Formats: sequence, structure tokens, C-alpha cells
Amino acid sequence: MEKSTLTTIPDEDFLYVQIADRLGSQIRQQVIKTGEKLPSVRALSHEQGISLSTAYKAYVQLEIKGLIEARPKSGYYVRYTPARSFDKIKPKGEQQEGESKKVSLDEMIAMVYRNFSAESMLRLSVASPALSLLPQARLNKSMMEAIRLSPNSCISYESVQGNETLKKHIARHAFSWGGNILPDDIVTTQGCMEALVFCLRAVTKPGDVVAIEGPTYFGIFNTVQSLGLKIVEIPTDATDGLDLNYLEKAIGVHKIKACLFVPTFSNPLGYCMTNERKKQLVELLAKHEVPLIEDDIYGEMYFGKTRPRTCKSYDKQGLVMLCSSVSKTLAPGYRVGWCIPGKFKREIVNLKLMHSLSSASPTQAAIGHFFETGRYDLHMRNLRKALHTQCLRYTQAIAEHFPDDVKVSRPQGGYVLWIELDKKIDAFELYKQALTYKISISPGQIFSTDSRFTNFIRISFGAPYNDEVDKGLKTLGRLISKF
Amino acid sequence: MEKSTLTTIPDEDFLYVQIADRLGSQIRQQVIKTGEKLPSVRALSHEQGISLSTAYKAYVQLEIKGLIEARPKSGYYVRYTPARSFDKIKPKGEQQEGESKKVSLDEMIAMVYRNFSAESMLRLSVASPALSLLPQARLNKSMMEAIRLSPNSCISYESVQGNETLKKHIARHAFSWGGNILPDDIVTTQGCMEALVFCLRAVTKPGDVVAIEGPTYFGIFNTVQSLGLKIVEIPTDATDGLDLNYLEKAIGVHKIKACLFVPTFSNPLGYCMTNERKKQLVELLAKHEVPLIEDDIYGEMYFGKTRPRTCKSYDKQGLVMLCSSVSKTLAPGYRVGWCIPGKFKREIVNLKLMHSLSSASPTQAAIGHFFETGRYDLHMRNLRKALHTQCLRYTQAIAEHFPDDVKVSRPQGGYVLWIELDKKIDAFELYKQALTYKISISPGQIFSTDSRFTNFIRISFGAPYNDEVDKGLKTLGRLISKF
Repeated sequence: MEKSTLTTIPDEDFLYVQIADRLGSQIRQQVIKTGEKLPSVRALSHEQGISLSTAYKAYVQLEIKGLIEARPKSGYYVRYTPARSFDKIKPKGEQQEGESKKVSLDEMIAMVYRNFSAESMLRLSVASPALSLLPQARLNKSMMEAIRLSPNSCISYESVQGNETLKKHIARHAFSWGGNILPDDIVTTQGCMEALVFCLRAVTKPGDVVAIEGPTYFGIFNTVQSLGLKIVEIPTDATDGLDLNYLEKAIGVHKIKACLFVPTFSNPLGYCMTNERKKQLVELLAKHEVPLIEDDIYGEMYFGKTRPRTCKSYDKQGLVMLCSSVSKTLAPGYRVGWCIPGKFKREIVNLKLMHSLSSASPTQAAIGHFFETGRYDLHMRNLRKALHTQCLRYTQAIAEHFPDDVKVSRPQGGYVLWIELDKKIDAFELYKQALTYKISISPGQIFSTDSRFTNFIRISFGAPYNDEVDKGLKTLGRLISKF
Repeated sequence: MEKSTLTTIPDEDFLYVQIADRLGSQIRQQVIKTGEKLPSVRALSHEQGISLSTAYKAYVQLEIKGLIEARPKSGYYVRYTPARSFDKIKPKGEQQEGESKKVSLDEMIAMVYRNFSAESMLRLSVASPALSLLPQARLNKSMMEAIRLSPNSCISYESVQGNETLKKHIARHAFSWGGNILPDDIVTTQGCMEALVFCLRAVTKPGDVVAIEGPTYFGIFNTVQSLGLKIVEIPTDATDGLDLNYLEKAIGVHKIKACLFVPTFSNPLGYCMTNERKKQLVELLAKHEVPLIEDDIYGEMYFGKTRPRTCKSYDKQGLVMLCSSVSKTLAPGYRVGWCIPGKFKREIVNLKLMHSLSSASPTQAAIGHFFETGRYDLHMRNLRKALHTQCLRYTQAIAEHFPDDVKVSRPQGGYVLWIELDKKIDAFELYKQALTYKISISPGQIFSTDSRFTNFIRISFGAPYNDEVDKGLKTLGRLISKF
């Protein structure tokens, strides 16, 4: 594993970022209090020996982060910021030499995976919907009807690119995220993971460097590393999302061959990049000719009014490879995913051919049929509503049962809450203690290749809130307090 | 592509093989005529200065090859052997600078693949059973029953190693090939191809050298190369199979990191290594600590009385990784395969986890159920009988319709005939001409990385013999004659 050698060193081009960072940290530490007026742009420029433009940009930066607000004809003021909001998480923080160091990242991940399938467990570790939220009966019906409608009972090989009906509906759904996609632009895969693997293999070779978010879904690390690729983590956080400046610098330093990001409801942060930032990201990568693998697996799980746009919708050069699946929305066990690989379609088709000839016929046909009958749209409306409610309910319970110094993310979609505990708490220890109470959570350690998140945990709100969950969260709160 | 620089040398340990070879070549050249009685074992032993046991083994060898037959209480006789049997095919033959050179191997393979799925085509190119030979209705029933029996309707993730019922029956079936396998020794995969890919990745890294048979299934070349591996082709032919002496030398010269062979009914040759040779192969590789990836996908398609043993059955050190699937026997489109990876199980489980978390639940459950109800054994008895009949019927038709100088393999199982045409004939040209008559065949060029097989074609007998096939083979025969 190559560790990034980047430090956030002063960079004359990004002076305003430093100024904003410094001011931001003063605001967070309440050196400048909520409601206080800040110096005018002119005064700041004078005071810091910077240009008016740089001073202005620093304030805009703070505004974007939600730390200050511009009041018309009056100036900039520190906004109300709840004590529980996140500190800016910077990569390359101090490596904490805690207990958890004794267990390797791989071993931790393997442990967490093992407990995924333990039946008697309160599984707060799985970023998926509870079975009760999935339309079992209607999907079974689609499976049977699809097999009956197939001229060969789905017993024959499916074509390499995938089931036609399924591709047609994936293309249609692309409208909702701003895409203009034809069925032939799509290649189906064995879940989203396989799509990511093929995309990575299409644009890299072993030894190459790939940029991913930190923190990110732990499965990604293993997958990227198992392909012989090196990882550079680009800092992202629950309030500002991906650090594009850092990314641009990293591209220069590390010869990054591909980026693999989750721009919509990233896991574990639940953060959705704004349309503007998505566009900037696509343009930035286009400028440097770096392909973007856009993991859009949570894209349909929005709590707002509309489906967020994707980076793919801003892609003019075919450099964005969108990957998704129905594993988080409909049927994890069906392993039906896809990618829209832009100009790398030929490579993806070849890789699929070399790996497995084609994907399973019955499962693709069943999901295609589920779309075709309109069952999917109906199901998704219900699922989104249920998840949003669950998100709020879990957040509230955590506020009630967890100690006061705990900070919780406010996701705009997806399945998970990202929770920062007191610095002294070792999340992996907490994870192990919780297991003895038959509660599985995901310790922060497994979301990064370094040890920045030893005091974080991820909790899934995929299961409807009930007494068992309530009891589990109370127990967790008690365990955290005891530390 | 690294080219091998090896040649074949005599080996004292295999005296009986040499004797059998010499006798066999006399039989083929009609020095000893059909129906003639051979010297008794005792006479042969005396005549050649070899032990009785070696003489006996030489005759058994010739019997296995179908060149002689033992008549009870009478002795050994030369069997009826059509003049069309194979000459020994040696690798490193002259490179033929034909027309087909203009099209790259990759392009040829891509073309052949494309025509696999063309519906109106007489598909003599596909090494799979015709749909009519597959138990569609009974398999649909298993799918529905399996989903009904599953506590979660097969909607949830299957465990990483795979469906329990399926693994149980794979383990049970291992008895028939001499294996002593537990369900927990097995990892299910997305077809046999994915099993091969995981096995290759488990024991090699990009740049390593892998030994495969030449000629072999063209999908293997692409798969091996797409993993950044180099190929050494070990010569094999339709009468003697894999050249073990050549292999041993190749291991020394090339630092071979893994072998990927099809010891039972290799594709395209249809050759089955004898038990003795399989054991030798395993011991040879164990001596050099080289893992063997045993592609056993055709193992169940035997025409003889019993299921041939596998190399895996001789494996004492866990170095043999057996891969198979139901794609050739039951349901190509289900993509249900498995591997029995010996001591590399942990690596395989990890690779599967990194690639796709798990395999599809409904398809695994359906195949498991199909085994559980005994439907599989019944189906296989019928399928084997049908295939053996088709094999003989196709062979006879080729003898009738093709020119006299054409030579045909005599497979002991599997789906394909390997046919040698006149040296002047360019098989890829023939392939293209046949396409204009809506007949697809596999040209020999795609079965090797060099140009040894420009005058070979592979024809599948997976479809029942009927008027369409008859007409197709007549047309092919006419095209061949015109060259």
C-alpha cells in the first residue's frame, strides 16, 4: 500500500482555502461565536495581506460550508451551527496507536463480513434495506412470469451486454438523473461490485494509482488492492463532501489513472455532492483526462423531492463510467448490476466475456420484468418514504441514548449514519463489546487505510425502527458512555 | 507472447507408452491390418525385452485408444479403425502464412462469439447441448420450489461460499470421480469461467507464466491474457493427450506458476487422460510445487460406463483446484459453477468477496433443488446417451459427406469433433464461406496462439442429428471439396 505523501502544504493558488480553514476552525472552536459579525472583505484583505478577491473567495468557501452567512447590506456573520456538526476531517491526521492496531485492516473487514450473515444479530452494520422492506412476493411473480415469457425458459446464455428489457428500463430511468442513455450504452453485471471491478480493470493496470474517497466503503479498498492498484485517499467529509482542490493536486503528484467516487449519498457519510460540484468534478477530470468511475448505487435512495443528477449527466467525453445495481433497492441476492461505461464500452464487454461470458439469465429477466410492469417505481416510492422516516427515527434515538458529545451525520439519502465518538473511544473495541450483546456495527477503522476514524462508527438505518432496534441503540449508548 | 523452445524427448519411466506408441503408429499406417491378431502379452514381453507388466500396460493403452480390442480367451486384435484417424500433431509446426493472418486472433474470436447468438444459424460452433436436450420444465419447477422454500425468497445475499444444498450435492457427486470432498471445501462461482479466473488470480500475479494445452478452448487464451499472464502451450493431441515430458521441461525453463488443463474430454480434442497419466501429472506438478487448475467442465459427459476420475482425486497436497459448472449439462444461462480449490480456499473466498460479495441466490438454490430431487441424475443419464448417439451420427455423416483425406477425432466424451482438413485449406476462409450459408463452425486458428491449426475445424455435436444438420454437413463437405 502506497501511503499518500501529500500534506496540506501552503499552496499559493489556494491561499483562500487556508484562510477559510483557519477562520472555520476558529468558528468551530467558538473563538468566533455564533451570530458574531466578521470583518468586512476589505478589512480581511488588509488584515491578512491578501487580495480582495482572495478574501472574498475565503468567505464564499465558509458560506458553502454553512459556517457563515452573508446578510444583505450588512456583511458576513457566523451562522448557528449545532455543536454536533462535524469537524473538518483532514487526512493524514495523527495515527492513533490504539488497541485496534493489533488487528489488521483485512482481518477487521473479514470479521465484520462474517457477522453480516449471523441471523440472530441486530445487524446495524449492513448498508442494505431490511428484508421486510423488499417486495418478495411481487418479485417472485416477476421471476415466474419472466421465465414463462422467455422462449428458452432463461436456460440459455444471455447476450454479453445483457437482457434487452432490463437495459431498456435502465436507459429510461436514466432520464431521472439527467442522462441521455440508449440500451446499447449499458452492460449488465453481477451486482455493482463486478461493474466497479470491470471499470477499474478497463482503465488501469496493476501498479497504477487510483483515487478514492476517505472515508469510503471498506469493500472498495480490498477490491482495488486485489487488482494490484495503489490507493490515494481524497479527503471527504459529511459537511463539504469531496475536496476537489486536494484532488486536483493529487492528480498532479500521483499520476492518478482513475477516480472511484460515490458522488451521491456516499458511504459512510451519506453526503450528496451538489450539481455544481459534480459538474466541476467532471470538468476537472476531463481536463486531466482521468476517467471517473461513478458508484451510483445509492442514487435512487434520495430523501428529497427529486432524484439527484449524476456526474455521468455532465459527461461530454465518455470519461464517466456509471455503475449501479438493484442490490440496495430491490434484491441483493439477485446480483443484478450494470455499468454505463461511456467510451470504454468495448473494454468492459471484453472483460465480461473473459470473466464469465454473460450474466445469469433468470435474475436479469426477472428484474427486467419487474421494471416493465411498473412494480419498480411503486416499490421505490414506498421504500424511499420508509427509509427517510427510519433515518429521522434513528437519528433521534441516537440523540436520546448516546452521550452528548457524540456527533451524527445528516444524510440526504442512502442507508447509513456516520457517528463520531469521543477521541478516546476505540471503535473496534466498541464493535467487539457490542457483538457480545448481539449487536453488529461497523467500526470506523475499516473505512480508511489509515487510522483517522478510530473513534467513528457507522450505523445502518435499513431496518424499520422497532423495540429491538431501540433496545440495541440504548445498549450501544450505554457501552459508549462506559468508555 | 512467449514462445516455447522445447522439444519432446524419450522418458524411461514410460516404456509402455513408447511401445504402445510404436504399435499404434504401425496400426495407423496399416502395417498391422484391421482384424489381425497381435502377439500375446508374453510374446510381446519376450520380443521387446520388457516385463510382462509393461507389455500388458502397452496393450491396455492401445485398447483405451480404441486401436485394439481384447477378445475373451483369444487375445488382442486390431480393431476396425477408419483411415481417418489422427496423425500425431506436433506443436511448433511450420507457421502457415495464409490469408487468415490478416485477421488477428482476438478479432477472429470476437467474430466467432458474435455468431454464437445468431438465431437463424446452424450453430455447429457451440460446445454446448441443444436447448431441446435440457430439462426446461423440470428446472423451472425447481426454481419455483426453491424460491418458495427459501426463508427470504432468495432475495437476500447468499453466503460467500455458496448455497448449502448445492455444495452438499457437489460434494456427494465427487464420489463418482474418486473425490473425498466436504461441502465446506467448495466455493460456488458464476459459471466455470469465473472459477478459472479466481483460481488463476489466486496463484499467479501479472507477468507470470501459465501452462495451457495447445490446442485448447479459445476463451482460455483471452482470459489468461486479460489477467496479464503469459502462456506456454503444452502440446496435446487427439490420440495421446498432454505431453508430460514436454511439460516437465517447460516447468524448468519457463518458471511456470500454474497449469490450466482440461484432463477429461479436453476441448477441442475430446481426449480423456488415463487415470495413470492423471496421477502422473499430479505427482509431477506436486514435485515442482506447481498448482494445477483442473477444468472439469466436460467430466460428466462420458460415453463410457463410468465417470472418469479427476486429477483432483489424486491430489494429496491440496495443489489441484478443480473447476466445473452446470453450463454444459443443465443450464448455461444460470451461470452456476464452482471450484474445489484445495489449499487455496481462503484466497478464492477473498477474491470472490472482492469481485461480487456472493453469487446469485435464486439460480444456486434452483440448481441445488434440482440435485436434491434426483432430477439431475435422471437428466444426466438421458443426456449422456443422447450425446453419445449424436457423436457417432455426426462422425458417420462427416465420413460420408467430407472428402476422403479429412481426419476426425474420436472423442470419449464432451461435445465436439476436431477435424483436420487438407493442409492447403484455410479454416478461417472456410468459416467465412460457411457463414454465408448460415452455418457457423469454429476455425482451428482460434484454438492456439500460433498458426498450427489453420487447416483444422471444430464441430459441435451438441444438437440432435436432423435434416438441417445433415444438409449443413453436406454443404460444409462441398465447400471443403471446392478448396
